[in-house]
Amino acid sequence: MVEEQPARRFTQVVELRGHIIDSLMLPRIMEELMGLGVEYEIQQFDVGHRKNDPSYARIELIAPTASLLTTAVREVAAHGATTLDLEEARYAPAPRDGVFPEGFYSTTNLDTDVRIGGTWVRVRYPEMDCGVILRNGAPDCVPLSDTLAGESVLIAGAGIRVIPVERSRGETPIFGFMGSTVSSEKPKASVVRQAAAWIRRARADGRKVLVVAGPAVVHTGARETFVELIRAGVIDVIFAGNALAVHDIEISMFGTSLGVPLDGRPPLESGHEHHVRAINRVRAAGSIKEAVASGILTDGIMHACVTQGIKFLLAGSIRDDGPLPDVITDAIDAQRAMRQCIRNGVGVTLMLSTMLHSIAVGNLLPASVPTVCVDINPSVLTKLMDRGSFQTVGLVMDVGGFLQDLLAELTRTE
Amino acid sequence: MVEEQPARRFTQVVELRGHIIDSLMLPRIMEELMGLGVEYEIQQFDVGHRKNDPSYARIELIAPTASLLTTAVREVAAHGATTLDLEEARYAPAPRDGVFPEGFYSTTNLDTDVRIGGTWVRVRYPEMDCGVILRNGAPDCVPLSDTLAGESVLIAGAGIRVIPVERSRGETPIFGFMGSTVSSEKPKASVVRQAAAWIRRARADGRKVLVVAGPAVVHTGARETFVELIRAGVIDVIFAGNALAVHDIEISMFGTSLGVPLDGRPPLESGHEHHVRAINRVRAAGSIKEAVASGILTDGIMHACVTQGIKFLLAGSIRDDGPLPDVITDAIDAQRAMRQCIRNGVGVTLMLSTMLHSIAVGNLLPASVPTVCVDINPSVLTKLMDRGSFQTVGLVMDVGGFLQDLLAELTRTE
Amino acid sequence: MVEEQPARRFTQVVELRGHIIDSLMLPRIMEELMGLGVEYEIQQFDVGHRKNDPSYARIELIAPTASLLTTAVREVAAHGATTLDLEEARYAPAPRDGVFPEGFYSTTNLDTDVRIGGTWVRVRYPEMDCGVILRNGAPDCVPLSDTLAGESVLIAGAGIRVIPVERSRGETPIFGFMGSTVSSEKPKASVVRQAAAWIRRARADGRKVLVVAGPAVVHTGARETFVELIRAGVIDVIFAGNALAVHDIEISMFGTSLGVPLDGRPPLESGHEHHVRAINRVRAAGSIKEAVASGILTDGIMHACVTQGIKFLLAGSIRDDGPLPDVITDAIDAQRAMRQCIRNGVGVTLMLSTMLHSIAVGNLLPASVPTVCVDINPSVLTKLMDRGSFQTVGLVMDVGGFLQDLLAELTRTE
Amino acid sequence: MVEEQPARRFTQVVELRGHIIDSLMLPRIMEELMGLGVEYEIQQFDVGHRKNDPSYARIELIAPTASLLTTAVREVAAHGATTLDLEEARYAPAPRDGVFPEGFYSTTNLDTDVRIGGTWVRVRYPEMDCGVILRNGAPDCVPLSDTLAGESVLIAGAGIRVIPVERSRGETPIFGFMGSTVSSEKPKASVVRQAAAWIRRARADGRKVLVVAGPAVVHTGARETFVELIRAGVIDVIFAGNALAVHDIEISMFGTSLGVPLDGRPPLESGHEHHVRAINRVRAAGSIKEAVASGILTDGIMHACVTQGIKFLLAGSIRDDGPLPDVITDAIDAQRAMRQCIRNGVGVTLMLSTMLHSIAVGNLLPASVPTVCVDINPSVLTKLMDRGSFQTVGLVMDVGGFLQDLLAELTRTE
Repeated sequence: MVEEQPARRFTQVVELRGHIIDSLMLPRIMEELMGLGVEYEIQQFDVGHRKNDPSYARIELIAPTASLLTTAVREVAAHGATTLDLEEARYAPAPRDGVFPEGFYSTTNLDTDVRIGGTWVRVRYPEMDCGVILRNGAPDCVPLSDTLAGESVLIAGAGIRVIPVERSRGETPIFGFMGSTVSSEKPKASVVRQAAAWIRRARADGRKVLVVAGPAVVHTGARETFVELIRAGVIDVIFAGNALAVHDIEISMFGTSLGVPLDGRPPLESGHEHHVRAINRVRAAGSIKEAVASGILTDGIMHACVTQGIKFLLAGSIRDDGPLPDVITDAIDAQRAMRQCIRNGVGVTLMLSTMLHSIAVGNLLPASVPTVCVDINPSVLTKLMDRGSFQTVGLVMDVGGFLQDLLAELTRTE
Repeated sequence: MVEEQPARRFTQVVELRGHIIDSLMLPRIMEELMGLGVEYEIQQFDVGHRKNDPSYARIELIAPTASLLTTAVREVAAHGATTLDLEEARYAPAPRDGVFPEGFYSTTNLDTDVRIGGTWVRVRYPEMDCGVILRNGAPDCVPLSDTLAGESVLIAGAGIRVIPVERSRGETPIFGFMGSTVSSEKPKASVVRQAAAWIRRARADGRKVLVVAGPAVVHTGARETFVELIRAGVIDVIFAGNALAVHDIEISMFGTSLGVPLDGRPPLESGHEHHVRAINRVRAAGSIKEAVASGILTDGIMHACVTQGIKFLLAGSIRDDGPLPDVITDAIDAQRAMRQCIRNGVGVTLMLSTMLHSIAVGNLLPASVPTVCVDINPSVLTKLMDRGSFQTVGLVMDVGGFLQDLLAELTRTE
Repeated sequence: MVEEQPARRFTQVVELRGHIIDSLMLPRIMEELMGLGVEYEIQQFDVGHRKNDPSYARIELIAPTASLLTTAVREVAAHGATTLDLEEARYAPAPRDGVFPEGFYSTTNLDTDVRIGGTWVRVRYPEMDCGVILRNGAPDCVPLSDTLAGESVLIAGAGIRVIPVERSRGETPIFGFMGSTVSSEKPKASVVRQAAAWIRRARADGRKVLVVAGPAVVHTGARETFVELIRAGVIDVIFAGNALAVHDIEISMFGTSLGVPLDGRPPLESGHEHHVRAINRVRAAGSIKEAVASGILTDGIMHACVTQGIKFLLAGSIRDDGPLPDVITDAIDAQRAMRQCIRNGVGVTLMLSTMLHSIAVGNLLPASVPTVCVDINPSVLTKLMDRGSFQTVGLVMDVGGFLQDLLAELTRTE
Repeated sequence: MVEEQPARRFTQVVELRGHIIDSLMLPRIMEELMGLGVEYEIQQFDVGHRKNDPSYARIELIAPTASLLTTAVREVAAHGATTLDLEEARYAPAPRDGVFPEGFYSTTNLDTDVRIGGTWVRVRYPEMDCGVILRNGAPDCVPLSDTLAGESVLIAGAGIRVIPVERSRGETPIFGFMGSTVSSEKPKASVVRQAAAWIRRARADGRKVLVVAGPAVVHTGARETFVELIRAGVIDVIFAGNALAVHDIEISMFGTSLGVPLDGRPPLESGHEHHVRAINRVRAAGSIKEAVASGILTDGIMHACVTQGIKFLLAGSIRDDGPLPDVITDAIDAQRAMRQCIRNGVGVTLMLSTMLHSIAVGNLLPASVPTVCVDINPSVLTKLMDRGSFQTVGLVMDVGGFLQDLLAELTRTE
């Protein structure tokens, strides 16, 4: 006769603090636990009575196996829950240059604390899919390719705390917390206004305005407006690829875009060569800056960057023609250069009509940097917005129209 | 000297009950209040300690003006909050056939209760954008076009309670509560499994399986699989348009789809006429059923519907050729016919490659009917999924592949 | 011993006249014959030496079977080739109301001649997928649903001549003959200029400017510009659906579009009801015209149509809420009403952000009416442009930007 | 008194040979001349009487200015017309490494001849947007970045002849010459059959089958079928990026794709880290090949490549995590490596669900290599197909379904 055994119970108590309801921290944790098949008991719940009051919850997780409990603790920690017994974080040495030890902690783009010497120390430069390395005793986010053999790499588990993004208390929200993509069927004025507000706040905070732009900015006729934004001092840094610069310069040198005359004349078969001829001339000059200095490049976006002293960074891709001499052709070098710019203090990002560069920059940005993505193609936004937070807005719109509206909004109120 | 006036305060207390955190009822209400600029104080909060325990919250809304308070009460009521003082619902007579009185209560597709004689009475047939009319003393959801002059129409305000959809406690969830659209980058097996589970549950409950299908089901080569699903008894009702039936019949009569031979022969210029010739033959026969009876239609989807006794409903559109004699050409008549089918007990809906019909059916369905939308075009899903709930899943996929996987899943396990 | 038989040869001589090379008539015929596996011999070829000179070709088709020869003759006839022996066209009576006789000639949207009494008589009202019926001795294009039992319906075969669209000799072309869809990567100025030129020519010829518009015209903020175009007298007829009118009227009555305030305030949950309330008020008034007369509708597109006396035609669909009292809910009745407008003399068509209505109108239009399709979604254009001719241009663009540019272009030069 | 001057006339005679009508050479030239406003007179036209007979045309171009005549001659030359007076080609030295002389001839991807010593010499390795350099006395296509200072670079103008792609005479065509993109509404069997035919012909000719694949091949469940195609020996070379390899390896190591379990279990929050852990392990091993050798990578696409000895080439991009040690991170180095593979004898290319890599490879391929592009997103195909020739087919389809159908087709008939 088989005697029925009482079910085994493995338990752990975790805590949550902050705006845990409307930041979705608690709902997400409940969702995750139900998905895992882990029971929970909310032992204590002190709700914040007014909107600025933090809440507190103490929750016991109850799992039928030890390994499921471990999984559950790790998962809820990723949403910001911490265990009661605050152990120190642990480390292991990197076995080789560019290789993390097994079990390394893989970062999110959220603010993260590490338990060092009994206190929580904030990790610098939060960025997705990196490791955390102690450098000069302090934890830094470091990408795989920049790790050196022997460095102390943070191990996943105890002593790590993630801080979810919370909804701003001080400003009127423009969107509900879900569905931050604005489809072609919705009014756009509010997104433009939000972008302008974020830009003004970044500038007030002494932080930079980063624009990530694809060649469609040029093709769709937004070039003049973009130049106006540069001249108005709105933009501090531009990340783009070879194509944006080439087509901008093609217009300046030949009056055509992808070989098509901008003045409405019919395109010539030979017009398609113009972009290669433009590249060749800049290569002959040595660089875009030298092309401006020598008088062969006299207007447009790249010209405005040079004359206004705007930082621009052109990252290469395998579909590039040429490329222009300024292009950083190595992808890892380009990431390093972009990372350095971002860590230098970016306060807001506009991503305009480029999937490749937008995803690349999105990988490097902390979640705390508000971001507006504009593309005429909703499927680009769907891909970009998957990581969406309160701080990210997608807008299905012609980029030219967006820039005009943005310029008007910034000019109107400043 | 101007004396500063103390700020005016207008307050109202509301209550929430149920799984108010993970159903997002409470986070949404907090979001809404912050958006409106209405302060709140959570006076009481009894959290459900385990996953099946309901929670309870009593919240005081505090607004600077009476009208803003009224707005806030109305908005939080739409998320399921009720006032403490439970008044009876109020009504006004419809001024004309097909016209509601001003101030009428406009329905959602959620379960809704009306306060009648001191008790909550559930509204029958929840459907978006309708009115609620007392018929034989009980509240029914009625569309504008079916209202009769003088009927008692529910007025927005007191005595109405909306019940948000809650996450099922009993089943392992396949998705988080947000982002239920499955993009082309994610595995599809889990969606197919969920669809199969919903179909089995609907059949176990004696409810019908409704398929809403666009002509791409035929064009993309899914016709044979669709016929297999019909023959396997999986499908109870089909909603479609003229085009699906015409192209299905074109294949049967001419071996071409939109004039293109299915056997890989090159298309002929004159092939484009086949669909009109097919329509003409069915019109000559009198109906699809008579075409089957007279032996001129011998295979395919419509043939299978006739021989298997499957209900099909073809709704007309202004882009129709012909149309086939079975098509209901009047849009309001077609809506009435679809509504009658749905109210007859639909338990799950598959929407396959049709934006027009999917939106039309989505308008008519209660939120409680689980729905899977499959389309190769993500922007169709984006539009369809705006109303998304825990019960709706979008899948970017070739419809033929989906139906094959679904058939395999249903066959494998039953 | 099997004796090898000489291959059978079935031949027929056909003729081509006109700009048979650059209208692609001859290349298409050669393509078609190679596809069919039919040999040909060009017996005579008199090339037009200058661009305005017509060319002439006499071609012998050589097929291995009689039936393949018949197919080949029919196919090349659809591209404009005629046989040498000009027989009279043949007819058969319609067997029932709404039914053509088997073997009926199915029309294209190209100009077509019928051989009657030894001369070529032009068919009136060319339209795709119709029949040709002799009414008062002259051939008219008639849709299936409007045929009466006993009428003389043209039979496919001898005595029919199709006239391909030729490239205009008189104007500078804006596009090559292929690839007339303008993607988001190409300059748009030339398309706007072409649209303006077509509009001016239509007006100079006393023909009407037809706009087919979807609700996105309102949602995307193009409403004001659209009203300006109406007031400027640019538009003569508008085809739309319930949704465009409803959302236009919602803005006028509630200041919201799909419930979202246009002034940038955050949307309210209850805002989604506004469109139903707007519909209800117009139903109470009796019609859009009466709503304007009674002072409850005071601005916007529909108001401008009423006050400027612009013809508008609202066709119903199964996804409509309400609908507005002006909507023609029966699809066939709506087609008849649109057909009557078109036959009344439309000289140019703009299709703005609507797939359903654009396809419906495209089905009704002769190929000779120049058409510009504007949509932010390239896949809509791909579907619309399949029938593309020299006269049709697709433009991937925000409709608001297009209308602004068009208004500027028309204002600038007139 | 002003005397009216007779109009100036500048003329040049050009010749065309070959299948100049159905290859569209002549229609395109006529189109181009009308666009330029250049008159022409066809002085002689000898039509090919049967389908295999070449035609011949001698055309006089008549322009009002010398410069317009020069433009016209250059434009018609790009379509294959040659002047009567066959001068030798001219050259100029490259001024610097990586820089062409002004006026250089910019290549197309069409076969091109250069006039050297009174005969036409075919340029090796036709590729778009390159220069032609005499190396060992013979003309080679050379990209900008590979040019050395002082090399003899071909100058645009005399002595150059482009050979348009002609329609194959020997095979039944599957498509008309226009509209080679197959939308989601058309049957796909014929495209699959065409792809299989091209693959068989390439193998019969001893040429390689190149597959360019994006990560969606893995995400959408096509991985197993892809492995079967590799094992069946169908594929010779694979071009991909870091992402395809990473996600393939993630499945092998963790059973998840982008963190989502393939067996239908719900995704864990921490699952998103799996791809970084997979990268890290391969970096620790040293390379994909060493990971297979050491037993940590035991199945999937990359494993099959290693065990079957299939050449794979992973090109880096700025959005890469890691990357894997096999990735060529420099874009120009990656182009060089791809170019070398292609010049080694590629006979057919399949482009599967990747815009970036497909465009990159499309830039490097001669027009004579037949290419099938498969993507679920029609706008990707629209961009890819702009350069479309008779040899390129686009197919809107789930890539998994395509590969299954292709495997079935290749297995069935071989």
